[in-house]
Amino acid sequence: MRCEIVAIGTELLLGHIVDTNSSWIARRLALAGIDSHFQTKVGDNLDRIVQAIEIALNRSEAVIVCGGLGPTHDDLTRNAIARVMGTELVRDSKIVDRIRNMFKERGRVMANNNLTQADIPIGATAIPEQPGTAAGLICPIGEKIIYAVPGVPSEMMAMVDGTIINALRRKAGVSAIIRTRTLRTWGASESLLAELVAPRISALEVIGNPTIAFQASGIEGIKIKITAKATAEEEVNKILSREENQIRALIGNLVFGVDNNNMEASILQLLEERGLTLAIAESLTGGMLGSRLTDIPGASKVFKGAIVTYANDLKLELLNVSKGPVVSELCAREMATGVRKLLAADVGISVTGVAGPSEQDGQPVGTVFVGLAIHNQIFSKQLLLPPPRQRIREFTIINALNFLRLNLT
Amino acid sequence: MRCEIVAIGTELLLGHIVDTNSSWIARRLALAGIDSHFQTKVGDNLDRIVQAIEIALNRSEAVIVCGGLGPTHDDLTRNAIARVMGTELVRDSKIVDRIRNMFKERGRVMANNNLTQADIPIGATAIPEQPGTAAGLICPIGEKIIYAVPGVPSEMMAMVDGTIINALRRKAGVSAIIRTRTLRTWGASESLLAELVAPRISALEVIGNPTIAFQASGIEGIKIKITAKATAEEEVNKILSREENQIRALIGNLVFGVDNNNMEASILQLLEERGLTLAIAESLTGGMLGSRLTDIPGASKVFKGAIVTYANDLKLELLNVSKGPVVSELCAREMATGVRKLLAADVGISVTGVAGPSEQDGQPVGTVFVGLAIHNQIFSKQLLLPPPRQRIREFTIINALNFLRLNLT
Repeated sequence: MRCEIVAIGTELLLGHIVDTNSSWIARRLALAGIDSHFQTKVGDNLDRIVQAIEIALNRSEAVIVCGGLGPTHDDLTRNAIARVMGTELVRDSKIVDRIRNMFKERGRVMANNNLTQADIPIGATAIPEQPGTAAGLICPIGEKIIYAVPGVPSEMMAMVDGTIINALRRKAGVSAIIRTRTLRTWGASESLLAELVAPRISALEVIGNPTIAFQASGIEGIKIKITAKATAEEEVNKILSREENQIRALIGNLVFGVDNNNMEASILQLLEERGLTLAIAESLTGGMLGSRLTDIPGASKVFKGAIVTYANDLKLELLNVSKGPVVSELCAREMATGVRKLLAADVGISVTGVAGPSEQDGQPVGTVFVGLAIHNQIFSKQLLLPPPRQRIREFTIINALNFLRLNLT
Repeated sequence: MRCEIVAIGTELLLGHIVDTNSSWIARRLALAGIDSHFQTKVGDNLDRIVQAIEIALNRSEAVIVCGGLGPTHDDLTRNAIARVMGTELVRDSKIVDRIRNMFKERGRVMANNNLTQADIPIGATAIPEQPGTAAGLICPIGEKIIYAVPGVPSEMMAMVDGTIINALRRKAGVSAIIRTRTLRTWGASESLLAELVAPRISALEVIGNPTIAFQASGIEGIKIKITAKATAEEEVNKILSREENQIRALIGNLVFGVDNNNMEASILQLLEERGLTLAIAESLTGGMLGSRLTDIPGASKVFKGAIVTYANDLKLELLNVSKGPVVSELCAREMATGVRKLLAADVGISVTGVAGPSEQDGQPVGTVFVGLAIHNQIFSKQLLLPPPRQRIREFTIINALNFLRLNLT
C-alpha cells in the first residue's frame, strides 16, 4: 500500500508557511507501515491541483490531500477532486446541518459562503470527525481512494488518526509495525562512520530488515537511524536492540546518546550518576555552555554556575589565571581549575578561543582551547574550527561537552 | 520563468525532518520574481528521484534539487541527474582538490568515499560556492537547467544566494526589484499594533505600493514588513524609507530594530553610543543572556562578562545578595548591583525566577524578576511568563533586554 500526500496552498509554495502537516502525516503513515514515496506541494490553482492529484493517484493506491477546504474563492480542493473523479459537486444536507449547528453552538452568525463547505463530489462521503466547519472527504475512485483533510493542524490530525490511518491499514491488510531508533554520534565524519559500519550495511543489504541510514545534523552530530519492521511491538524492539548492539560494537564510544537524548542530557546524566557537580568558565561562548545545559530540566542537580570572563582582565581577577596570552592551553587549564575552586564544584570545564571576526593573541579565528579539571586531574585540548563566528561557538560547545564525556567514561 | 524544487531524503518522507529547505528556497524565488508551482519530496531511491526530476523538468524551465549529495551509499542525486541528462558520472579533479584541501585545513583524515562527492555528470559544472565537502552542480539540459545543492542548510543557502537566484533572474530577464524592510517591535500585541497603524493601512489600500504586513514572531516580537516594488534600487529604498518614517510616527519606541538588527544588536549599539559597559547576573537563564549578546560580533566593546549563579548559595557568596528568597524583586536588584560592582561595569542587569518544572520560594512557575543598575540608579520589574520552561527562559531574555533599552533611551 502506497499513499502520497498532496499539500495545497500558495502560502506553502511561497515559503510563508513551512509544510509541517505533510511531515506529521508522513510520520503517522510510517508508524502504520504504509509507504509514502512522494509528497507534493501545489498552489491554489485548479488545473495544477488536478494535475498533482492525478500524478499521485497514478503512482499510489491512496492520496491524502491536505488543505484547500475552506469557504473562500481560493479553496479549490473539492472542485479539483470532483474533476479527478469525473463528476460534479452536490450539496450534502448532513454537512449543512453540522455547520449550522456549529455556528449556533458558538453563538455566531453564519456567512452564506460557509455552505460551500458542504458541497462534495458525487460518490464522496464525509469523514465522521469534523472538529471545525471544514468537512473531510472520503472519495473512492475504482480500487483507489482520495482523502481530503483541512489544513488546520488540529482538524487534520483528528481525521487522520480517527479515520484515515485505520482505513488504510485495513485496506492494505497491514499488520506490520515500523519503528526507528536513533544512535547519536560525535567525533567521526559521516564517511568514516560509514566505513566503520560497512560490515553491517553489507549484511543488512542481504537481510533487508532492519535498515540503517546516516543523517548529518550539524552541531547535533551524525545520527545513525535504525529502522525495523515487525508484526508486534515487542519483536520490533528486539530487532532494534540487537542492531544497536551490533553497531555499538563497531563504533564504540562515538555514540553519546539515543533518540532524543542530546549531548547536554547525556552529560548531566553521567555527572549525576557519578555524584559530581559542575562549574563552567566561558570566554568566546559568552554563556552558551551554561545556557545549553540548563535547557534540560533538573540541571540544578549537577550544575552550580558559570563565570563568563569575556573581558580578559576578568580571567585574571576572578579565576586567578596567570598573566599571558588568554587564547592558550595554559589559560584554559587555569580557568577550569579556577572556576572549580571558586564555585566549590567537583568538575570545572572551560573554553577560551577566537570566535572572530578578527584574530587574537596571534591565534587565527577558530582556535579554541578546552580545559577540564576533574578534582585534581587536569586535561586540555586544542580545537581548530571553521568560521563563521556562530559555527565556531556552537562547535566549541559540543566539542567541549564531548571532551568532558570521554574523560568521565 | 518557473522553477520547481525537488527535496531528496527518506527522512523527509518519513517525517523525521520537516522540509524547511524548500520553504527557504521558495521565499528566495518569490522575492526574485520567479514562479514555483510545484514542490516535491522524494526518498533516497534512484528510480523515484529520476521520476520526480523528470516530471518537474517537463513542467518548468528550472529545477533545484536539494539533498542527496553526501558521500554515502544513499546519496543518489548525482546519479539521478546523470540519468536524466542521459550521461555518465566523471570525477572532477578541481572538486577533488577542493575536498582534499578542506580535510587538510581541518587537520582531519579523508575517507576514500569522500571522493565520490567529486563525481559529477558529464556536461555539469560545480557551483563556485562550496562551504562543505559537497559540491553543488549546474546541469544544463537543452534550454532548461537543473541545479543540485546539499541538504545542509548553510551550504544550500550559500549556493542559492551566491549563484542560483542571480542566474535564474538573468535567464528570466526579470527587472522589477522587490525589497522588504522589517520594523521589529516589542511590547504591543498584534491587534494593538494593527490599530495604531490602521491609518497607514487604509491609505496604502488606495496607493497599492508599498504594502505592509504583520508577522508575529514569538520571542523575536512582532515584525512589520514593508514591501515595495520599483525599477531601480534607489527608488525602492526611497519608498521604504518614507513608509518607515510614517509608521514610526504612529508607533514610536515600540520599534527596537530594523531588518536583521535584533534586540541584542540594538542594545549593544545603544550601550556603545553612550560609552557604557555591561555586566550580567543570571540565574534561571543559565548563561543565555550573555550567550545571546555575544552572538553579535564586536560585543566585547560593551560586554565585560557574566556571573551565572544557578545554585542559590552562589548568589550570596559571589554577588553579595542578602539572605532571603532568591525569586524576589530585592534579590534581582541586589544581583544587578552586585555584578556591576564585581565586574567593575557601568551597567548591571540581572534575572532571577522560576523556569520550572516545579515552583520555588512559593512562587509559581513563570515568575521572573529583572534587576537593572545603571551607575547608582536601580530599577526592577516583575514578569509573569507562560510555560513551558524553554519559553519562559526565552521570554525572560527579550523582556530583560527591552527593559534595559527603555531605561537607556
